[in-house]
Amino acid sequence: MNDFVFAADLGGTNLRMAAVDRDGTVSNVTKWPVPKNVSPGELISLIAEMAGERSGPLGTGAKPLSVAFTAPAPVAKDFDGVLTKLPNLPSLVGMNLKTALQGLFDRPVVIENDATAAAIGENWIGASRGVETSVSVTLGTGIGGGLIINGEPHRGPDGIGGEIGHICVEPEGHPCGCGSRGCVEQYASATAIVRMANEAGMDVKTAVDVFEAWRAGDGHADAVFRKMARYLGIMLAGLANTLNPEMIVICGGVTAGWDAFAGHVYDEIRSRAYRAAADRAPVVRGELGDNAGIIGAARSAFLAL
Amino acid sequence: MNDFVFAADLGGTNLRMAAVDRDGTVSNVTKWPVPKNVSPGELISLIAEMAGERSGPLGTGAKPLSVAFTAPAPVAKDFDGVLTKLPNLPSLVGMNLKTALQGLFDRPVVIENDATAAAIGENWIGASRGVETSVSVTLGTGIGGGLIINGEPHRGPDGIGGEIGHICVEPEGHPCGCGSRGCVEQYASATAIVRMANEAGMDVKTAVDVFEAWRAGDGHADAVFRKMARYLGIMLAGLANTLNPEMIVICGGVTAGWDAFAGHVYDEIRSRAYRAAADRAPVVRGELGDNAGIIGAARSAFLAL
Repeated sequence: MNDFVFAADLGGTNLRMAAVDRDGTVSNVTKWPVPKNVSPGELISLIAEMAGERSGPLGTGAKPLSVAFTAPAPVAKDFDGVLTKLPNLPSLVGMNLKTALQGLFDRPVVIENDATAAAIGENWIGASRGVETSVSVTLGTGIGGGLIINGEPHRGPDGIGGEIGHICVEPEGHPCGCGSRGCVEQYASATAIVRMANEAGMDVKTAVDVFEAWRAGDGHADAVFRKMARYLGIMLAGLANTLNPEMIVICGGVTAGWDAFAGHVYDEIRSRAYRAAADRAPVVRGELGDNAGIIGAARSAFLAL
Repeated sequence: MNDFVFAADLGGTNLRMAAVDRDGTVSNVTKWPVPKNVSPGELISLIAEMAGERSGPLGTGAKPLSVAFTAPAPVAKDFDGVLTKLPNLPSLVGMNLKTALQGLFDRPVVIENDATAAAIGENWIGASRGVETSVSVTLGTGIGGGLIINGEPHRGPDGIGGEIGHICVEPEGHPCGCGSRGCVEQYASATAIVRMANEAGMDVKTAVDVFEAWRAGDGHADAVFRKMARYLGIMLAGLANTLNPEMIVICGGVTAGWDAFAGHVYDEIRSRAYRAAADRAPVVRGELGDNAGIIGAARSAFLAL
């Protein structure tokens, strides 16, 4: 087997693992649901078991050059590996993920914020390859973001750089788990789409349900996606004026509903941002799908070797 | 006379000129009102006259190393010197400022956006010296901004980087000259402070009037500054989450009313931004006052030599 990094994407719902080689080629993908209230010990056991399965990333007995992990949390410059803020995985708070992974694999460990990793992946071999300055927004259960500025990920000293899901778009808006109100995450995440659909009287459980209703011509579903797109566009217009990026990449599960919202997002940006800034930054869909985070984390691990 | 740059700050109201040496020391400051509807020819005559006055920057007959100018407009990477969007100086649209200045002085000419120049100045020898990543916001007739990211000004390919005055903070808010609505400029600029005071029934003409009323204990004036600070804080909280800066510097004429709003701005940021981001970024007042733009433009000119 060629040189590869063992890369994993730890989300609130699933743990996804793969081998990633120097070209960004992903192989031996394995995905497992993360048990509710998983303990640190159970997580490490799960990782060891999954990785070593016959079809898993380490199933051939090959040794990875290093281990790359994403976490759904800010990753500071001097991150020691201890998970602190994990709204979706509270049972892991206090775990030293880095030390645990080093102990398990006896290899260098690199940890990235999940949305920053997605931005790095898209910038490496995805939608924004070759682009100097771009904004990536990941629409999932919540909203994450990653900034690439002059070819480099912008993490900030506390790893909060790119937390664009918590930009306020409605001063007295819906309360947010972050402590503020009216964050764009409360209007444009999958969770928000379902909430807004329920508020509009729709009987739906997932954002996919709302998209299917939209495809069937449901007016309420259309109104929900217009509202979602409007707020997302307001936030992105602000970033277009602030950073004057060359591209805006939209990633994450909600992009499955692309046709229902993308045009409205672009219209909202054009109606609000400086003309030159809107013209400069096409809004495109990420190309790497669910592998964006794994690929980006692996890229960081290769660069750190 | 030591090596110096001839630096000028072209605003909608005043033209300010000085000599700036390699340490950032400013001397021979001269300031003139810009005539209403000034033509390009009149502007160049005014510059030549002012610069050559006995007490002016070139009055001693010394030759500057180069010429540094700020403009109240986006300055693109490949800026050819032609002024295009100048809401406050429409009579100069179409003028090639760069060519005109080269013709006048026979020296290299560097042009910076005014608010970006202020950010560069503060980062060189002002409030944010030694700080790697900072946001500077200039509160004047409008709101400008400048970003310093990893020690470098972030201008963006079209020079729109840092146009944070046009971040939307109220989706259905007051119409803005930029074409959008609810931009923070419509709530936290000097113009907005006067408008909001008039809306509250106060009979005032300038932001200074509102500040004086505040000092005298006027409740309406206090409400205006609280509103202004709230919206400014909403915008800055978003930038704290997006860029995780180490400092936020507030510059411009409105800082004369610092005591009326600064505390409320910080409270709003703390109530909305990630705790670590708010803790990381003190909100401080610029140290260079009206010279920030001149000093920053001169810095860029020295670096270009």
